[in-house]
Amino acid sequence: MATVRPVRLYESSIPSGNAHKVRLLLGHLGVEVQRVQLDILADPPETRQPAFLAKNPNGRIPLLELDDGTYLAESGAILWFLAHGTPYAPDDAVGQGKALQWMFFEQYSHEPHVAVLKFWTYWGGLHRKSSRQIARLKKGGQAALGVMEEHLEHHPWFTGERYGIADIALFAYTRSAGDVGFDMQAVPSVVDWLHRIPQQPGYTHFDPR
Amino acid sequence: MATVRPVRLYESSIPSGNAHKVRLLLGHLGVEVQRVQLDILADPPETRQPAFLAKNPNGRIPLLELDDGTYLAESGAILWFLAHGTPYAPDDAVGQGKALQWMFFEQYSHEPHVAVLKFWTYWGGLHRKSSRQIARLKKGGQAALGVMEEHLEHHPWFTGERYGIADIALFAYTRSAGDVGFDMQAVPSVVDWLHRIPQQPGYTHFDPR
Repeated sequence: MATVRPVRLYESSIPSGNAHKVRLLLGHLGVEVQRVQLDILADPPETRQPAFLAKNPNGRIPLLELDDGTYLAESGAILWFLAHGTPYAPDDAVGQGKALQWMFFEQYSHEPHVAVLKFWTYWGGLHRKSSRQIARLKKGGQAALGVMEEHLEHHPWFTGERYGIADIALFAYTRSAGDVGFDMQAVPSVVDWLHRIPQQPGYTHFDPR
Repeated sequence: MATVRPVRLYESSIPSGNAHKVRLLLGHLGVEVQRVQLDILADPPETRQPAFLAKNPNGRIPLLELDDGTYLAESGAILWFLAHGTPYAPDDAVGQGKALQWMFFEQYSHEPHVAVLKFWTYWGGLHRKSSRQIARLKKGGQAALGVMEEHLEHHPWFTGERYGIADIALFAYTRSAGDVGFDMQAVPSVVDWLHRIPQQPGYTHFDPR
């Protein structure tokens, strides 16, 4: 871990997979931080109020506060910072590139489908969405799960030869995919991978809803 | 740069900002690779045909082929790999985290608005989109530009104290924002930053459309 230490994690009042990624890695690393919960269902959400916007102008959690006064946003960037120099991140250029490839894939091709459908299902009024909107998310999310399946048919993990930050990034919302309507029978290697992650040392369980 | 060398860059037949990011960094580094153009307006797009899906199951460009046989997808991951050990990437954990924060911000909060509106405007039939769809992209993209403005009021670059991969990632589509309807008068520091990038050593001009 870096010499600059994390002191405080800003997360949301309802469970956030993006925040769970950070808490999961902190658990693996045995690092404790203060947690601050923001009400994102308030109007305006606490993440869009001045006190928080001064910390993260993009108005999103998770946000990690470091002991040098830095605020670090974006779950993928926070994972990268915390895993620096630990076994949870690759140390070679190709390995780092491949791990980041999966983390960018998660944020661009997976999370906007699976996480959004999860939010609508549990907290966002799924019944008010059009069948076209829902079908678009289901198609995109199922395609992302298929890309994961293709990889896991040939490799044990997403972070090179061992479990690490790319697996943590993808686990956070994939674990809820079956509960919000995605077809997990079509992706048996993903289901196997989901079962192997809670067996990792220091794994911390979070209720996703 | 890493000891594994890039040999081939797969990009699209129409200009892609995500591919331009890679070509821009290659230019700064003085590295040449073979370029392969895929027709993404074909039906199905060449990126979704078996020959390419065997290289990138997610069916997207840019894709970088390395001389060890690795295929690296996702513009942010490719930038990271190429910049490894060069002045275009920070070498400390906090600096790396902040650079990646901006690169994830670009892919999650900026590109899905600015790049999509650019695509609709030039190649995707903007006139067939609803005013609600267009308004959603304009609001999201303008907000992202505002977050960039806030940062640039206090810092010269997005990659720490010097120009680098986070600036390259954000430059690719921000340079087109004014042409596709975003209000650049509202973000004067962004406009100034846009003007400083072509002055960097090894900058290569690409026509964005």
